[in-house]
Amino acid sequence: MTTKTGKPLDQKSLDAILKRRLFYTPAFEVYNGVAGLYDYGPPGCTLQANITDTWRKHFVLEEDMLEVDCTMLTPAEVLKTSGHVDKFADWMCKDPKSGDIFRADHLVEEVLEARLTGNKKARGEEVVVDEAKEAKKKRKTKDTGAIKLEDAVVKEYEETLARIDNYDGAELGQLITKFEIKNPVTGGDVLPPVAFNLMFQTSIGPSSNLAGYLRPETAQGQFLTFQKLLEFNQQAMPFASACIGKSFRNEISPRQGLLRVREFLMAEIEHYVDPEGGKKHPRFSEVRHVKLGLLDRKVQLSGSTQLTYMTMGEAVDASIVDSETLGYFVVRIYLFLVRIGADPQKIRFRQHMANEMAHYAADCWDAELLTSYGWIECVGCADRSAYDLSVHAKKTGAPLCVRETRKEPLKIEEWALDLDKKKFGPTFKKDSKAVEAALEALTQDVREKLSLDLANTGKAEIQVTGLASGDSTVEIGKDLISIEKRTRVEHVREYTPNVIEPAFGIGRILYSVIEHVYWSREGAEARGVLSFPPPVAPTKVLLVPLSTHPDFKPLVQRLGHKLRQLEISNRVDDSSASIGKRYSRNDELGTPLGVTVDFQSVKDHTFTLRDRDTTKQVRADEQTICKAIESLVKGQKTWADIQHELPEFTQQDVD
Amino acid sequence: MTTKTGKPLDQKSLDAILKRRLFYTPAFEVYNGVAGLYDYGPPGCTLQANITDTWRKHFVLEEDMLEVDCTMLTPAEVLKTSGHVDKFADWMCKDPKSGDIFRADHLVEEVLEARLTGNKKARGEEVVVDEAKEAKKKRKTKDTGAIKLEDAVVKEYEETLARIDNYDGAELGQLITKFEIKNPVTGGDVLPPVAFNLMFQTSIGPSSNLAGYLRPETAQGQFLTFQKLLEFNQQAMPFASACIGKSFRNEISPRQGLLRVREFLMAEIEHYVDPEGGKKHPRFSEVRHVKLGLLDRKVQLSGSTQLTYMTMGEAVDASIVDSETLGYFVVRIYLFLVRIGADPQKIRFRQHMANEMAHYAADCWDAELLTSYGWIECVGCADRSAYDLSVHAKKTGAPLCVRETRKEPLKIEEWALDLDKKKFGPTFKKDSKAVEAALEALTQDVREKLSLDLANTGKAEIQVTGLASGDSTVEIGKDLISIEKRTRVEHVREYTPNVIEPAFGIGRILYSVIEHVYWSREGAEARGVLSFPPPVAPTKVLLVPLSTHPDFKPLVQRLGHKLRQLEISNRVDDSSASIGKRYSRNDELGTPLGVTVDFQSVKDHTFTLRDRDTTKQVRADEQTICKAIESLVKGQKTWADIQHELPEFTQQDVD
Repeated sequence: MTTKTGKPLDQKSLDAILKRRLFYTPAFEVYNGVAGLYDYGPPGCTLQANITDTWRKHFVLEEDMLEVDCTMLTPAEVLKTSGHVDKFADWMCKDPKSGDIFRADHLVEEVLEARLTGNKKARGEEVVVDEAKEAKKKRKTKDTGAIKLEDAVVKEYEETLARIDNYDGAELGQLITKFEIKNPVTGGDVLPPVAFNLMFQTSIGPSSNLAGYLRPETAQGQFLTFQKLLEFNQQAMPFASACIGKSFRNEISPRQGLLRVREFLMAEIEHYVDPEGGKKHPRFSEVRHVKLGLLDRKVQLSGSTQLTYMTMGEAVDASIVDSETLGYFVVRIYLFLVRIGADPQKIRFRQHMANEMAHYAADCWDAELLTSYGWIECVGCADRSAYDLSVHAKKTGAPLCVRETRKEPLKIEEWALDLDKKKFGPTFKKDSKAVEAALEALTQDVREKLSLDLANTGKAEIQVTGLASGDSTVEIGKDLISIEKRTRVEHVREYTPNVIEPAFGIGRILYSVIEHVYWSREGAEARGVLSFPPPVAPTKVLLVPLSTHPDFKPLVQRLGHKLRQLEISNRVDDSSASIGKRYSRNDELGTPLGVTVDFQSVKDHTFTLRDRDTTKQVRADEQTICKAIESLVKGQKTWADIQHELPEFTQQDVD
Repeated sequence: MTTKTGKPLDQKSLDAILKRRLFYTPAFEVYNGVAGLYDYGPPGCTLQANITDTWRKHFVLEEDMLEVDCTMLTPAEVLKTSGHVDKFADWMCKDPKSGDIFRADHLVEEVLEARLTGNKKARGEEVVVDEAKEAKKKRKTKDTGAIKLEDAVVKEYEETLARIDNYDGAELGQLITKFEIKNPVTGGDVLPPVAFNLMFQTSIGPSSNLAGYLRPETAQGQFLTFQKLLEFNQQAMPFASACIGKSFRNEISPRQGLLRVREFLMAEIEHYVDPEGGKKHPRFSEVRHVKLGLLDRKVQLSGSTQLTYMTMGEAVDASIVDSETLGYFVVRIYLFLVRIGADPQKIRFRQHMANEMAHYAADCWDAELLTSYGWIECVGCADRSAYDLSVHAKKTGAPLCVRETRKEPLKIEEWALDLDKKKFGPTFKKDSKAVEAALEALTQDVREKLSLDLANTGKAEIQVTGLASGDSTVEIGKDLISIEKRTRVEHVREYTPNVIEPAFGIGRILYSVIEHVYWSREGAEARGVLSFPPPVAPTKVLLVPLSTHPDFKPLVQRLGHKLRQLEISNRVDDSSASIGKRYSRNDELGTPLGVTVDFQSVKDHTFTLRDRDTTKQVRADEQTICKAIESLVKGQKTWADIQHELPEFTQQDVD
């Protein structure tokens, strides 16, 4: 990973800044902390709020989505239906002696990597230690010493590691046996992997008999409001719901800072679309020209990770992306990420492999951001088909579907069946109901065949289950039933919408964007800068009086008040540090603008405005400066515009 | 409860609107729902976001508070220290036969109320049924029939009901026995009340040995970040942290809609202040003139609920409110509530009775809003003293305190103790350590006395616990110790800050404000209006084309786009309903402004702007209309201002 200056990203320094300036810190540190839980301090909290605020404008406001706020507490039955109770699990191994618990894939990975390192040492090859990765581990991997491995073994280990995300529990168990993988700390045996459900369980109400979970995603709550929202939307399709809120996953071994945590903020959209007509999108023309780096399924199957740059129009036309609607959202996601500061060169869209997707999914593309941990999945954009609405409807009987009046009534020719029910009792006795049900369930093809039998032989034989006699067929005469072709007219079309789901992990996006905007300024000592776009930056303006001279104070207060009225967040740094030092401290916080109050300001009420990225300054009167700030913060103008409009100021030495 | 027109509030109609327009609805309804869990639909969700956004501007931005986002998952140890594991409970009774569970105070209340109703019937008195209250009950209270009660019994029941919130478990148990209270459904006996902890429990991590809870308040997370925030604030006091987030309480019997729920949004401030110097506040002068309706402790003790209207300056001067800082926040809370639409006539501040407050609290005032359920506690404003920081510091050893350099070093005269430690071993052998510890722990008074003993007798007797011999005293000669008066100079002052905590229940505020702004417009049929202040209203502008004529569409789209650019939310209603009907529908949603696009608009690009509350209209060109909308939505101008500036429009009949 390199920063925008082309220099390698110094992750250690960045981590130090993030911790020191309270972007986020481990939660409950005074109680020795809990893995996978983080608190956001003031700049991180505001950054998070600005990102979600931009998200709301970019998606909800722009597209008239129906935002909802559903509960996190979720009854078990809902998550049983959705499949989470049975399938939302990772594989874990326990060392019965020490009590240590490992995530099975992480264990295999750790042990094989250590052996490969030992092999390199034994062969006298250079060993590159990823310090950042090591530093984040809760415990160091035990040095297994320099042991040479056979070439074939090295190859096998490497191939296993490359596919480590794709093994199921049984396969991981086989690998553990085959490679004789032990507890890396104690050398003890580990038990075979067992599934560990990742949901936090609790019980709701005083009687303890209503099991509940903390939601693992906001999606299920949204699906259950579908019917109400459709009605709210006056039955108009397509439409989307959206939800911003915390979700929870009880990770076995949280790691990589904000990238794998137990409580996290999500922003999810459920866009409901008619599955007929190719899932077109009315605004697709607005995005079809946008060029993206795609990593499709075929390329991955060929073993390559080479990006293909093409426009979304080309991708949909070539059926690389499944539909216009899916493609539309992929581009909208891309534009959002760029808007909040992600580096376009470090964004790719990776298509899920067939075995990665849920069986019901039609297509899925992840927006991945390049970080010092590699490419990180930050947004998923899946076509979940009609799966979720269907399973909840089936379970509860609720009509989670769309009923629309057909423009042209649909005429359906079909084989209709008439029964003389009065005669059923005397004829079939106890079996009457079973025979009736079997008849009603007959398919069109079978009905057609039976109508011929009735015409030809006067009777028909049908399969019936559950007969009192134990037989599996009964014979029915034409005195009891008749079958004939009729035309039925259907005025209403009923269908279950498909769901396109863009799902954003805000914490992962926040961390990745921080890496993208971080760089070091050259100078006597390297100084970190976080170049957030102004609309996203936690604080917009730093107010700096030249010194503690009392004349400056009223001017600073007045400016602060004016900016607050414009709803522009600002902070005063009136410490005794040099102006350069004070600006430097705020470059670390990503504050894009600085205003200096000096003796000239006292005389003529003019102020200098400083740009964080270029460190250039302009000078103008209060009103002009405030207006410039407003246009920069709202993203209406760039610093280049301002520099063009206002006279440069070079007298002060602020570096 | 009356609305602003002086008519009684029709709670049934209001509830119907809130449900039909999806402000909020019971969660998981397709799964038959879970008591105490609600989803916010689009207007409720936006209303909630606008209220928290206003909160952030009013408190966080205005006062430079340090906003944090702490986790909801909380390890049990933290909540053990804070007292929640032991004390955060309600009393519940179980009917062992039926399995029914009751909140003990609710059970007593329900049964006694039913008996009083029966008595009235028996005496032929009028029985007023609170329909709204009855409608919200999960089950109807069984009609116990018309049974006359003795006058003394009626009085006793009424006195018990008046004090129902103040009984503990044992007292409730006594009442149940004394009044022979049974399960009102089955008539079965109930077991004595037991404490039921209101926190949702779960376990964190795969090993199930780290117990955790969902936080019952955001406060504890904030206290644990105190040290980091103090450092972030460059050690400057006073300062405040703030947190907006969900909290959870496993209510035994949730009821009254949003007023008693199991998952709810809170916004809390922890303002840290030096306990010395009377807890002054630098901005108190800005609020001292504000007049409020107070219900102080003394008035309540006298059995009255009469409000005293006085300025906050008077209240603090008369020591009715404990400190300037507490008083400052009480007024700020009041101003916030009014800003988001609460009716000043329906806001009171009630002081907690001594037995209502936690033992450590110095003072506490609740902001209560009058609703059809009575006065509802919506904001608590407590002085929690140094309690929380102290208990966490004691438990963990973390220095949760402020260390500040004294302006004048403090000189302390004290009795200093010097030991000749080398001689301790030979003299006291195994007891050396115990004797040393006992000496170090001596108080100043004892030291003074012992110094005299040493001077007079050459030896001193001290109390020591844990001596090998089992004795409790030892004698020490002046060859081993000396005690003399010395002056110590302390340059640093160390203290634990006190915490003033304004804590807002956003859901309760949201519901109460809805009741305050609701009224019915006179007309052929009563039509509900929600008169939210424009900055809080879910949607700001309704765009209404006169008809479906194609000429209107581009104008409507253009207006919508312009308003979106100004970040003003708007919706189009181009249905075929009459303009009056369309406006009426949006009055229910509280949309403050409407713009009509008519044939005149097509000709000259002028539009009419309609005010929800007066239904008056003005007409002007696009730019002027947009500007007027912007100033109204930002709260910079009122409709009266706009009506003064722009020509009235009366031609269209929109009613």
